Amino acid sequence: MSLENQIIQIAKQARAAARIMATLSAEQKNRALFAIARQLEKNKEVIQAENAKDVAAARKNGLSDAMIDRLTITDKVLDGMVEGLEYVAGLEDPVGTLSDSSIRPNGLEMARMRIPLGVIGIIYESRPNVTVDAAGLCLKAGNAVILRGGSEAIHSNQALARAIEQGISTQGLPAGAVQVIPTSDRAAVDIMLKQEEYIDLIIPRGGEGLIRHVVAASSIPVLKHYKGVCHAYVDELADLEMGVSIVLNAKAQRPGVCNALETLLVHEGVAQQFLPMVHKALTQAGVTLKGCPKTCEILPDAVPATEADWPMEYQDLILAVKVVKDMDDAMAHIAAYGSNHTEVIITTDLNRSRRFIREVDASLVIVNASTRFNDGGQLGLGAEIGISTSKLHAYGPMGIKELTTTKFVAWGNGQIRT
Amino acid sequence: MSLENQIIQIAKQARAAARIMATLSAEQKNRALFAIARQLEKNKEVIQAENAKDVAAARKNGLSDAMIDRLTITDKVLDGMVEGLEYVAGLEDPVGTLSDSSIRPNGLEMARMRIPLGVIGIIYESRPNVTVDAAGLCLKAGNAVILRGGSEAIHSNQALARAIEQGISTQGLPAGAVQVIPTSDRAAVDIMLKQEEYIDLIIPRGGEGLIRHVVAASSIPVLKHYKGVCHAYVDELADLEMGVSIVLNAKAQRPGVCNALETLLVHEGVAQQFLPMVHKALTQAGVTLKGCPKTCEILPDAVPATEADWPMEYQDLILAVKVVKDMDDAMAHIAAYGSNHTEVIITTDLNRSRRFIREVDASLVIVNASTRFNDGGQLGLGAEIGISTSKLHAYGPMGIKELTTTKFVAWGNGQIRT
Repeated sequence: MSLENQIIQIAKQARAAARIMATLSAEQKNRALFAIARQLEKNKEVIQAENAKDVAAARKNGLSDAMIDRLTITDKVLDGMVEGLEYVAGLEDPVGTLSDSSIRPNGLEMARMRIPLGVIGIIYESRPNVTVDAAGLCLKAGNAVILRGGSEAIHSNQALARAIEQGISTQGLPAGAVQVIPTSDRAAVDIMLKQEEYIDLIIPRGGEGLIRHVVAASSIPVLKHYKGVCHAYVDELADLEMGVSIVLNAKAQRPGVCNALETLLVHEGVAQQFLPMVHKALTQAGVTLKGCPKTCEILPDAVPATEADWPMEYQDLILAVKVVKDMDDAMAHIAAYGSNHTEVIITTDLNRSRRFIREVDASLVIVNASTRFNDGGQLGLGAEIGISTSKLHAYGPMGIKELTTTKFVAWGNGQIRT
Repeated sequence: MSLENQIIQIAKQARAAARIMATLSAEQKNRALFAIARQLEKNKEVIQAENAKDVAAARKNGLSDAMIDRLTITDKVLDGMVEGLEYVAGLEDPVGTLSDSSIRPNGLEMARMRIPLGVIGIIYESRPNVTVDAAGLCLKAGNAVILRGGSEAIHSNQALARAIEQGISTQGLPAGAVQVIPTSDRAAVDIMLKQEEYIDLIIPRGGEGLIRHVVAASSIPVLKHYKGVCHAYVDELADLEMGVSIVLNAKAQRPGVCNALETLLVHEGVAQQFLPMVHKALTQAGVTLKGCPKTCEILPDAVPATEADWPMEYQDLILAVKVVKDMDDAMAHIAAYGSNHTEVIITTDLNRSRRFIREVDASLVIVNASTRFNDGGQLGLGAEIGISTSKLHAYGPMGIKELTTTKFVAWGNGQIRT
């Protein structure tokens, strides 16, 4: 069979499976999640042996230690997958719930019913645990899912796929409910992205390059964020100690993730006092500062920033710093260089906090807390499948509810339009 | 200025205006809606004189009477635009409302805040009233809007645009809030569809050809329906008199619209009794039937249907009719040929109605009422900007709420992640 026919067949099977998945009860879906968890434990040795092949190839191909670390399925990583499935089983099933119901003047009763999206395609890089995490969340929301991991994890993903298939087949779920693309041929992705007749949504997870390619090649709606250029604005009326603590956490607690801080904006009225304080804390944490001219005046060892620094997502222990005239100046900078991801204000002033919340356009706008809270778990959505900075359908972390939609339903007793 | 630069400038102005629009109160937006209404009334003669140019050109170009009818701005059409704006002013403003709030274990208070989408592009054909209706609804939801009407209505749309601009400028709203593309050059549409940096959503309204072109050319998310192939399934356990009344209304009350009935499915257990009843009513209304072999046996004057009839949106006084074995057969036919628009079951059986509602995938699934109720006004959403059969963001009629999204907001007192 040609690669194209192979991918189309997978997509058609997913579409057929989606019709069945949409009718399952929460109990049936939970049993399948537990069955997958059991199969992962049972097949642990096989999964780790297949993963060792990927790790060996990665070493041979000279991948970085960080990437090899993300690729490796240790006992702890496998336990994490099992716990993740059990956690998702505990989430409330949104499918079938009714909302916005009303009785129309003619007696027609209407409501919105929450339903699965249908078929979801996930395209991701390196971490094989996405295979299990994404499959579990999509399945709980009543969707069929097609997974396409990175070529560097092909053996691991196939082994995980077999365990998932065994798990769902023991519970009588359709085999097309979870499928892993069985080839590392890159052409498979582009064929998959054209199956708009069978696939309802694509979620890419990985670097900006992967995501831009997916968006450009897809005729299917894509939910994604390109990057997280997150700002913290320290206002003139701020608790500066709190500001130091938040900036340090936002930048240094986990610098490689999308909700890490990339640019610090400081009101000129407190710059002289605040910058040395935050500089001390950041330097101790190994952070390099790249500053605007005013910053460099106050902090002589800051590296002068260039225009290229303001839209930069370092994902590293580097922080751009700019002194701003006031909050309007800060908001203008955020509007010009921000990525609609996460924006923080540190202030004690009520009206400024209200304006910042209302006027800043980002998937999460925070007053007096770390950017690192832009996360489905932290915001109480349960497990998340990614963060969207597109405004359509979902803006911010996407949990189980964002893997569903609503249809209208209506009951009458013969109503006609006149 | 080149056409491309001209369109990009319009898009940039819209983006800048959107930042201001997002901060307006409902009162400010309502005042602008009333001001537009007053300008329409004041400029009535100019608008109708410009419209007369389009109508004359349409006659010269041999457009159908139906199209000329849709193009003409009669006194009644203009009054309808004014009333539409007043109606939209009366709708609740969803912007700024908070939902799903919770306090996280660490004390962080979070919620979702409803916000405008930003910049919306509307691409439409022939009816110039869309210019005013769409502008009003987008404006009330706090968006900036770029309108691109058909070339056959270019003078009318420009005249309406001037009235709108005058209206919003009297209220101090940014001029970029409502813009009409000032050229009938088709290349302008394709340039507009690539401005994903400035435009958040495209809504095309018109024939399937226009919509397919927009979807293929757009790098911006598109909400649309291609067509409405709506079915009514008359079950074995149905009130047959009610069935006749619903089928007649769904097919003949306004056959040219997307929520009109296109295919009738009849359970074989009642076909012998029901088909002659419905045939009589439909024939009196001038409807031609195209039937499957069993239908033609029962109704000898039905035209034999071919495979091409099942996916057909006639938009005319023609109805395809098929006798099915049971409800599963009907639902399989709907899954194969339906367009996810509107599907009706006529039954007195509770469990079948429940299964049909749960299992049929359409933007509106109805029990015992006409397909014609798939309409924002009829379902209580207020004014609608169109109907979506895509599942992302909106599925079904799109009202003011569908022209908004939510961002996450959070308030803390120094929370950091550990």
